[in-house]
Amino acid sequence: MKRIGVILSGCGVYDGAEIHETTLTLYFLDRAGVQTIMMAPNIDQHHVINHLTGDEMGETRNVLVESARIARGEIKDLATVSASDLDAVILPGGFGAAKNLSSLAFDGPNATLNAEMAALLKAMHAAKKPIGAICITPAVVSKVLADQGITLTIGDDQGTAGAIQTMGNLHQESTPDQIVIDEANRVISTAAYMCASSIGEAGAGIEKLVNEVLKRA
Amino acid sequence: MKRIGVILSGCGVYDGAEIHETTLTLYFLDRAGVQTIMMAPNIDQHHVINHLTGDEMGETRNVLVESARIARGEIKDLATVSASDLDAVILPGGFGAAKNLSSLAFDGPNATLNAEMAALLKAMHAAKKPIGAICITPAVVSKVLADQGITLTIGDDQGTAGAIQTMGNLHQESTPDQIVIDEANRVISTAAYMCASSIGEAGAGIEKLVNEVLKRA
Repeated sequence: MKRIGVILSGCGVYDGAEIHETTLTLYFLDRAGVQTIMMAPNIDQHHVINHLTGDEMGETRNVLVESARIARGEIKDLATVSASDLDAVILPGGFGAAKNLSSLAFDGPNATLNAEMAALLKAMHAAKKPIGAICITPAVVSKVLADQGITLTIGDDQGTAGAIQTMGNLHQESTPDQIVIDEANRVISTAAYMCASSIGEAGAGIEKLVNEVLKRA
Repeated sequence: MKRIGVILSGCGVYDGAEIHETTLTLYFLDRAGVQTIMMAPNIDQHHVINHLTGDEMGETRNVLVESARIARGEIKDLATVSASDLDAVILPGGFGAAKNLSSLAFDGPNATLNAEMAALLKAMHAAKKPIGAICITPAVVSKVLADQGITLTIGDDQGTAGAIQTMGNLHQESTPDQIVIDEANRVISTAAYMCASSIGEAGAGIEKLVNEVLKRA
């Protein structure tokens, strides 16, 4: 049975993993009959956002503990997973990828990276195992695999597309029902809520991404 | 456009709304082209559970604020929604329904109910508008509409099935890919994670439930 890693970054679009993107990834993976291995770093979130008001809350929450909400408790510390444990890996989006897994939201192309995530993604790429990147995470993958001329999509946001190019990769515009496949690098991306206006629109691209990742896993 | 309410109870299976069940409900509703109106009560959660360890955490979280994570901020205070605003209503599961929307987890058939939720569901039932109940929420609906002989399913859990019968309703066993329709009362239920072993299994019943609710809305 194929073993597909899913890297989470919390639980909620504004400070963690985007819940719809993550859940639909899990749904399409399960329907395909593969084994899903969820993981997240055991670190504090950058901050906690009240998702009703958008205001920052005076709280501290842990990325692994909050990610476990989406995973129903079945989740590993990212530090304990290596590329040899996986046949492919998928990163759902959400600001957590740009605030907890990296500093992309604050530092753009000069972002720092969570070291465990970066090491895992580099090892997956070196082993020619597929990487699926959803929403904002193509920009995170672009920083991990900088200066390699990889073609990625985050939809049509000019600022983020420019950051990907500054990092030495290529950006291809897309709509949320589309995916972009860099066959040589085995990197597949879709824009999802970077430009989707509904969960159905986001799901259309995610379903295609999951299918194409699995074909190559 | 049909207006379908979805009542949330937090964000996470052990102390709030079950995330997969809620997200898949939203996904199937959106694909059907209807308007979704999410709502939750503006009250503190009964408690906060660390979903990695299962232990109670010494924190206070608000049901509406945490539910907003699943809703990406687009959610109403349950107190502001009335039956005239909706053509149907669906309740995803999770312990939040049995701890925050009611005291079912602690008091069984003697549970107390969130008054706003109970009033809304009674008004929907009186108006012959469909109610969809997922996972543990058929037992909550059973308490709201006690002694009416409504046929519901929560899968095959004998304790919860017995509680439904004690409340004066009827229980029909089911597998997670099945739904139970009480046509006279326009109440449709599915067991989902009460007995599903995967998100795909839970989704199979939820997809059918959403379709049958919409046929009657």
